[in-house]
Amino acid sequence: MAYKAPVRDLTFILNEVLEIDRYTNQPGFQDVSSDLVQQVLEEGAKFAEEVIAPINHSGDKEGCHWDNGVVTGPKGWKEAYQAMVEAGWPALSADPAYGGQGMPAVVGMAFGQFTAGASAAFSMYPGLTAGAYAGIHANASEELKTKYLPKMATGEWGGTMNLTEPQCGTDLGMVRTKAVPQGDGTYKITGQKIWISAGEHDFTDNIIHTVLARVEGAPAGIKGLSLFLVPKVMVNDDGSLGERNSLQCAGLEHKMGIHGNATCVMQYDDATGWLIGEEGRGMNNMFVVMNEARLGTGLQGLAIGAAAYQAALEFAKDRIQGRSLTGPKNPDAQADSIMVHPDVRRMLLEAKAFVEGGQAFVLWTALQADLEKSADEATATKAKDYMGLLTPVLKAYLTDKGFHVASLGMQVHGGSGYTEHFQASQYLRDARITMIYEGTNGIQALDLVGRKLPSNGGRAIMSWFADIDAFVAENGADTPIKPFVDGLTDAKKKLQEATMWLMQNGMQNPDNAGAASTDYLNLFGLTALAYMWAQMAKAAQAQIDAGSDDPFYVTKLQTGRYFVERILPDAHGHLVKLKTGAEVLMQMPAEAF
Amino acid sequence: MAYKAPVRDLTFILNEVLEIDRYTNQPGFQDVSSDLVQQVLEEGAKFAEEVIAPINHSGDKEGCHWDNGVVTGPKGWKEAYQAMVEAGWPALSADPAYGGQGMPAVVGMAFGQFTAGASAAFSMYPGLTAGAYAGIHANASEELKTKYLPKMATGEWGGTMNLTEPQCGTDLGMVRTKAVPQGDGTYKITGQKIWISAGEHDFTDNIIHTVLARVEGAPAGIKGLSLFLVPKVMVNDDGSLGERNSLQCAGLEHKMGIHGNATCVMQYDDATGWLIGEEGRGMNNMFVVMNEARLGTGLQGLAIGAAAYQAALEFAKDRIQGRSLTGPKNPDAQADSIMVHPDVRRMLLEAKAFVEGGQAFVLWTALQADLEKSADEATATKAKDYMGLLTPVLKAYLTDKGFHVASLGMQVHGGSGYTEHFQASQYLRDARITMIYEGTNGIQALDLVGRKLPSNGGRAIMSWFADIDAFVAENGADTPIKPFVDGLTDAKKKLQEATMWLMQNGMQNPDNAGAASTDYLNLFGLTALAYMWAQMAKAAQAQIDAGSDDPFYVTKLQTGRYFVERILPDAHGHLVKLKTGAEVLMQMPAEAF
Repeated sequence: MAYKAPVRDLTFILNEVLEIDRYTNQPGFQDVSSDLVQQVLEEGAKFAEEVIAPINHSGDKEGCHWDNGVVTGPKGWKEAYQAMVEAGWPALSADPAYGGQGMPAVVGMAFGQFTAGASAAFSMYPGLTAGAYAGIHANASEELKTKYLPKMATGEWGGTMNLTEPQCGTDLGMVRTKAVPQGDGTYKITGQKIWISAGEHDFTDNIIHTVLARVEGAPAGIKGLSLFLVPKVMVNDDGSLGERNSLQCAGLEHKMGIHGNATCVMQYDDATGWLIGEEGRGMNNMFVVMNEARLGTGLQGLAIGAAAYQAALEFAKDRIQGRSLTGPKNPDAQADSIMVHPDVRRMLLEAKAFVEGGQAFVLWTALQADLEKSADEATATKAKDYMGLLTPVLKAYLTDKGFHVASLGMQVHGGSGYTEHFQASQYLRDARITMIYEGTNGIQALDLVGRKLPSNGGRAIMSWFADIDAFVAENGADTPIKPFVDGLTDAKKKLQEATMWLMQNGMQNPDNAGAASTDYLNLFGLTALAYMWAQMAKAAQAQIDAGSDDPFYVTKLQTGRYFVERILPDAHGHLVKLKTGAEVLMQMPAEAF
Repeated sequence: MAYKAPVRDLTFILNEVLEIDRYTNQPGFQDVSSDLVQQVLEEGAKFAEEVIAPINHSGDKEGCHWDNGVVTGPKGWKEAYQAMVEAGWPALSADPAYGGQGMPAVVGMAFGQFTAGASAAFSMYPGLTAGAYAGIHANASEELKTKYLPKMATGEWGGTMNLTEPQCGTDLGMVRTKAVPQGDGTYKITGQKIWISAGEHDFTDNIIHTVLARVEGAPAGIKGLSLFLVPKVMVNDDGSLGERNSLQCAGLEHKMGIHGNATCVMQYDDATGWLIGEEGRGMNNMFVVMNEARLGTGLQGLAIGAAAYQAALEFAKDRIQGRSLTGPKNPDAQADSIMVHPDVRRMLLEAKAFVEGGQAFVLWTALQADLEKSADEATATKAKDYMGLLTPVLKAYLTDKGFHVASLGMQVHGGSGYTEHFQASQYLRDARITMIYEGTNGIQALDLVGRKLPSNGGRAIMSWFADIDAFVAENGADTPIKPFVDGLTDAKKKLQEATMWLMQNGMQNPDNAGAASTDYLNLFGLTALAYMWAQMAKAAQAQIDAGSDDPFYVTKLQTGRYFVERILPDAHGHLVKLKTGAEVLMQMPAEAF
């Protein structure tokens, strides 16, 4: 089936819901009009549909190849990658000072949904480069930035993030990779890193690794970690390539999905590296990168779900099987399309309502990443607060539900979906990793309740609640969108009650916060999507009120109605569960499990 | 990791909850004591752990091989299969009149959990034979039964069920495979069947296919279908094997999981077959088999979940990462076990509480299969009613949740779980098919609300509600198990309200029944598990009250408490959702999706 990038849905959000035309006074938006966004996304969609999507399924089947340290991608992937570099897509929202085109993050995150939907595994090659670029951009010296960033911005060189080791993933304080200063500004890096996405491949002449390591003599734990830039091939002062650095890919991981992406065991043996930022600030530097990476991971889970929905819909429309419960709808054929069945529609609408709400959530949050750079301090602070608060929610909620949607997509296919002939299996297998990497969803929930929520005395969530209250006050009158506003009001009330419970009980016993964390995050995700749906309903209703007869707006309201009536009621269960506290979890001794 | 069959959990259910010692007056139970059950299950556990489990992961990696119609299983599978036949396990609960050992179904279903947990793909070989055996046993002539059943009972010959064709799965009325009577009691069968599990392999000398086909000249649709017995190798009158029949495996399906099971495209070209039962009664004959097969599929989903839980628990106990939120629990080590984290315990308890509740649900329902044969008409009728009503609930609810548990198991593993080095991926991939085959879970939900519920004026559910009411009346006093009884009371009340809503609104518009079906089934599943947990809590509490200091009983109550506090609250959402009706699903035209 041919992947179609959701241009109309995303331009609706960008231009009609977020109204990005309003932001021309903000840095990066000066030359950004809704017309330009439309044009960029149409071009981007074409590229994703015609160049990336066609190699996705074959790449899943073939996987990557390792031969004595040399890694090659699936057939056609190198060519597609190089076409992407030539077309300039990786540089879309990178800094113009270092090779980028300077489009706002919100536009980059729209295009990102197309590439991840067309091929999640493929999108990780530019995605990891962008992560490494961000880490270097935020913290490295001007010299390193000038030397490495321009070619990373264009995608001419790749980039990676090296954190995990066999003995530590979540708990990076246990990192053993060591760095020995050479007295000339360089360090020798030695150690093994695992699960390094895009760690080695044949798509680019060079790969710039960012590596978390411990300088010899540094303290144990998190505080002893530093971040290093370690190129695969040494770069001469004139920018030309020199010798191979002493690092290599020792093997590939065999995984359930994302087969087209090379997940590498990386071996560093006295490899030459340069410090990014200051010694002992490795984790802080990494956190900058991780927030963007987490947004990207949430987006990826969502985009896979969106593609899975498309595939399921196409299958359902074509599949002739059985009859409508209310009598034949296509009496001349041997059977009706399975679209006549309420339960098939339930699965499709569950997917559609989540996907479209998630798309708004991603772009709304990406807009905060842009507004963080605002010259207006209040705007910048608020945007920064929201980014901090909502990143773990977005990452975990959208990946959990993205996987759920991929599973629904398989279910719509029936037995066909379980065979590798269709792509339903690939979507399900690919989506599953997004719940794990860039911090498992459990870690996101803990980050939310333990760090983001109490930060600055709860300023971020209080401000977010106030925004919702203002929206409700403005739109809560008896209008056609009242059900959306009422749904939002109810979800927000439950989230507020849950927040209060957390404040009272989480302080007193941190295990209560841990015990409530995942249900709290899910309740938060539901409330965020209710807020997005209310805003989309408002924008769609405004068009209808203004006389538009585009069926797009009616469909949007109908899809949103599904969200309110058949997804939002889960809020109740999350609230009840999280208030049960830690005892039921902690009372059992480990050996009794 | 080494699979351990859950002997203690199942003997607790059989002997202490269901008290099968009470049934010695029922057919098949005469010689069955709790001691015998204990002995059989201990032996069965040993076989599953030592012979079947060790070939599960390697079989997933290797898969089956097809060469010009000849299919061979993964390395070691033929030997394991033959060891199973020699040990007599396939015959455990088959009819003594035709080669079986005559143990009750409830004991067979306990052993079945061990084989499916040890290897779902492997367990399908005897599983499909048992399905074919049941179909022949219920409907075929004495001559066919005598000739084929004894060697199928022992597993010396395999068996299959051939229903699906490329153009039809759910809607079998569209079957095209044809049967031409030869005037000598035989038929020539011609057509293609797909997704035939265990359709061809090298484990046995013969495979007895049961095939749904249309006799030449029979009417279109369901009513024109007949069921045939079609052996791979012709059987002479003296029982010796003759020539190959003209059928073959035209290829294997490439699937997401259950790689060790050969999923075959079967080609019948004028193959010789014998009618099972009467012409035109094919679907009715198949329904007998399907109820048992659906019970077996629910069991399989559950058993995979149980194995996934075990693997996750073992990983969690060994994984040293991070510190407890309430301060180091293992200060001498570099980190604590992840068992200290409430959210890890949440995932494990979610799995454990579902698995143990599901185990009781399977055995409780299997007991109804035994009681159906009771000489007492009231007992037999009630058991038959319960089998009919609860089979779709059990199939869909246990497979949905079995997959959910397998996914939780992967999440506990973190990144390790996504690699094929651990078995978490296999469990997740294997579990996913159980939601689809033997009737998708959506079809189960439709069967429940459209057929099983209204059957005999709702007699089955009214009787089941009365049983629950009696249990509540007997145990609802202020005792330690009151929270279990209260949880059951509340769930049953919601299910009753949902049933009333269905009666009022489903009649008026069948799409309302379809729209409510999946939420209704889930609410039913929750109520069934609440009933099981209340009974288990009662049995455990009785032991504690009688002075037992076996920690097993305390753990059982703690696990059940998790079910009541953190799983049962989902009932609310299901009720609210199902009452929204069909409009939100049906209003959108198919082309607007």
